[in-house]
Amino acid sequence: MPKSELFGKDLICTQEWSKEELVKVLELAEEMQKDRFSPKYTSILKDKTFFMFFYNPSVRTRQSFECAATELGGHAQFLEPKAMRLKTKKTAGETVEDAAKIMSRYACGIGIRMLEDKITRYGEGDELLREYAKWADVPIISMAHDKYHPCQGLADIMGLRKHLGKDLKGKKLLLTWAHGALARSWCSVQEAALLYSRFGMDVTIAHPEGYDLDPEVIKATKKNCEENRAKFEIAHDVKEGYKGADVVYSRNWMSPEAYRGGELRKEEEIERALKYTEWTCDSEKMKLGNNPLFIHPMPVDRGHEVTDEVASGPRSIIYDVAENRLHVQKAIMALTMAK
Amino acid sequence: MPKSELFGKDLICTQEWSKEELVKVLELAEEMQKDRFSPKYTSILKDKTFFMFFYNPSVRTRQSFECAATELGGHAQFLEPKAMRLKTKKTAGETVEDAAKIMSRYACGIGIRMLEDKITRYGEGDELLREYAKWADVPIISMAHDKYHPCQGLADIMGLRKHLGKDLKGKKLLLTWAHGALARSWCSVQEAALLYSRFGMDVTIAHPEGYDLDPEVIKATKKNCEENRAKFEIAHDVKEGYKGADVVYSRNWMSPEAYRGGELRKEEEIERALKYTEWTCDSEKMKLGNNPLFIHPMPVDRGHEVTDEVASGPRSIIYDVAENRLHVQKAIMALTMAK
Amino acid sequence: MPKSELFGKDLICTQEWSKEELVKVLELAEEMQKDRFSPKYTSILKDKTFFMFFYNPSVRTRQSFECAATELGGHAQFLEPKAMRLKTKKTAGETVEDAAKIMSRYACGIGIRMLEDKITRYGEGDELLREYAKWADVPIISMAHDKYHPCQGLADIMGLRKHLGKDLKGKKLLLTWAHGALARSWCSVQEAALLYSRFGMDVTIAHPEGYDLDPEVIKATKKNCEENRAKFEIAHDVKEGYKGADVVYSRNWMSPEAYRGGELRKEEEIERALKYTEWTCDSEKMKLGNNPLFIHPMPVDRGHEVTDEVASGPRSIIYDVAENRLHVQKAIMALTMAK
Repeated sequence: MPKSELFGKDLICTQEWSKEELVKVLELAEEMQKDRFSPKYTSILKDKTFFMFFYNPSVRTRQSFECAATELGGHAQFLEPKAMRLKTKKTAGETVEDAAKIMSRYACGIGIRMLEDKITRYGEGDELLREYAKWADVPIISMAHDKYHPCQGLADIMGLRKHLGKDLKGKKLLLTWAHGALARSWCSVQEAALLYSRFGMDVTIAHPEGYDLDPEVIKATKKNCEENRAKFEIAHDVKEGYKGADVVYSRNWMSPEAYRGGELRKEEEIERALKYTEWTCDSEKMKLGNNPLFIHPMPVDRGHEVTDEVASGPRSIIYDVAENRLHVQKAIMALTMAK
Repeated sequence: MPKSELFGKDLICTQEWSKEELVKVLELAEEMQKDRFSPKYTSILKDKTFFMFFYNPSVRTRQSFECAATELGGHAQFLEPKAMRLKTKKTAGETVEDAAKIMSRYACGIGIRMLEDKITRYGEGDELLREYAKWADVPIISMAHDKYHPCQGLADIMGLRKHLGKDLKGKKLLLTWAHGALARSWCSVQEAALLYSRFGMDVTIAHPEGYDLDPEVIKATKKNCEENRAKFEIAHDVKEGYKGADVVYSRNWMSPEAYRGGELRKEEEIERALKYTEWTCDSEKMKLGNNPLFIHPMPVDRGHEVTDEVASGPRSIIYDVAENRLHVQKAIMALTMAK
Repeated sequence: MPKSELFGKDLICTQEWSKEELVKVLELAEEMQKDRFSPKYTSILKDKTFFMFFYNPSVRTRQSFECAATELGGHAQFLEPKAMRLKTKKTAGETVEDAAKIMSRYACGIGIRMLEDKITRYGEGDELLREYAKWADVPIISMAHDKYHPCQGLADIMGLRKHLGKDLKGKKLLLTWAHGALARSWCSVQEAALLYSRFGMDVTIAHPEGYDLDPEVIKATKKNCEENRAKFEIAHDVKEGYKGADVVYSRNWMSPEAYRGGELRKEEEIERALKYTEWTCDSEKMKLGNNPLFIHPMPVDRGHEVTDEVASGPRSIIYDVAENRLHVQKAIMALTMAK
């Protein structure tokens, strides 16, 4: 593969990439899916190392990234930064500058995952990724962090292109808060709002009062919609948004109060979320839509976020989207890391 | 390698595979040992991913499986399901169905290890493996679970074929309980009883009163013996079984009381087992046999299960058998996972 | 690559290798750096497995060794011996003999890391490595242990050869104890004393009273200096040693009292070390030298061991040296493990 124009580029949020760049990723991912083990692709990162930094554990993200590196002929190292002895406010240790500069000598790219329970306020994870990006000479790829989850967003869009066709303009997304006992991060839903709107979809975000997302993300999503002449709406009614929806995305997320007092109040969040029992995506609500696809970044909390009937129904594309994680990540790695 | 008739087959217990299929594994493993890094084998799983799910840690099993994938040109991911956020009776999380279906999109096969201390009753691990097998589209391979340990059984037989010749009919196995401080799982010894009898060996199982194995496994072993016109015997005398033995397998195992009350009573089991000091395999007892080989699935608890003199003696084949784990696992992976 | 005369050789301390052997490693490492992904090197360990045993966690050592195996076409397994169930004075388990003999059947080499907090007295880690080396049929490579850190030493020298030229005779090293809150192991500094003196450098070791290193290492270093007609000196003044230095190596280390009572007294050591605030390497002291290079095995404890101004200054070669870990380890693996 010739060196791409994307060579060396970080991916912290899709919002920072142009539409053309994102389409390039999707098109390559689609080709890679068709011809998965073709010699065209299996030497792209031959003998190269990709570092995966899991501040938070993950099974799927780890599986798909490590598998992606393997299929490109390289190797992904699974690293847990708890062993890193980084400098903190309280302890002696290494600076991010030193860590990032040295890792750039070994690897062709670095993935970082840092979610809600490893931070003391929303935004801290994003700042850490940008600190790594500042010092590293190789691309920093978000493997999900408190604000964004670009690989998930791209996997979603790849799934929608397959099932709805490549032109998503005018299709309606309902992104709805869901009942559940998990106090989930905002990253996947914020990425979805930002990215689906880039592709011209009408976006309705529905949630109970008090579950607002990051105002800056909402603002950027609105702007994306305006630029694409698409509709944007926020609803607090559990059913309203389903009307006319082509895609329903039902996911639990934490409230903006989650870090009140400087630490994640998980139990409090779960207790609060469990009250909204009506906010489960079910067949009855789905009937209000335009025979909508069901999409979810997984793992699905079945019975809470969505009923089995919908999650395993004929319009659910959750497994396809999960598979797409592999393909888009291969494409991203190929485009940003291969010389 | 052309796609095998075994392609796609799970391996949870050798009892569920035909004799011909098992011999196929052994013969390929023997060839692979002779010509370990031949190009015939090193591209069989090229760029493919095998998932290793360690509900229980293990060094040897992990070493040999990861090494096997590497030598076939692929890559084994070391995964610890504690990070999986699976649904349990008490917590929200992902179903095995969802996990297995998605993993099938990424990998060519999945190994699972689940031993005594991760379950609340005997049989639970076996059920979990079968639950994964039900939903996965790729082979599920037991890397040892509460009931069986098929790869160990095959490694044993490969060792016996080398040291006793390929026809094991009429050779006598003494499978004897051993003194020790470990409260070990039944998996290796049950697999041995089932598999050695498939190959026509006479089987004597010796243990103190109160250390019976799974009655269904005993029943199946008896049936295997009958079908092969081999002898089957259970003895409670510590020496009797050694008489005429061609192979002595000395291993500690827990009693059927181990899960009384719904959890593993490890301390109680160890205390109980430590009373039977005479149940150590030693040179004196070995002399009663037919110059018997000493075999053990390792790690050996030297001084308890067996004396150093026997374990390191000229008739011990423990290192050969341990090495065979690599070869049989390569053969199993090649036969069940290569297209 | 043809099989080297170093094939099969352990590397526990550079002192046990001849100068010619060490130069061979350095020269190959230098070539490998120039032509990092050349096909000359990328099949050297093709499909082979290297085991990394981390009794102590490490990020850099793990990154560089795993990366080294990948770039040679092989695979390094990341193993944490806590899962090994080894026999100890208190618990039943496997002997090092059994573990090492079996691992030799699977792998082409074994790296072991065992630092200060996993032992009860200085020297215990070194004994364990030698116990593995006694039984293993494949090379044992120290990935840092309580006494030595040969790969770090070689990476240092590779850095010095680049920045000072290949003839290091007559260049002066100041190896100085440094202020800090870490109670660091002696391994890197002892390795440096031994190895730099082999290459004919004048060695000054400076530390506050009561921070003596291993007397045997000091004795061997003196002898190395004598054999090379180089100077050797121990100083307790914080500035004296800087005079005329061509290389300054500033590193915190624990006192010989650290294991008083049979366990590492980390808090006590840190408290003690924090008193010597003047022992920070800074620009003012560096000016006393001969425009000296700054070198450090990293991670650097900035602000304690050295100021930012020096660590990030134009004469600091810390990143180059860290990169060299990769190249020297590739060279060591190639020379000792490739048939």
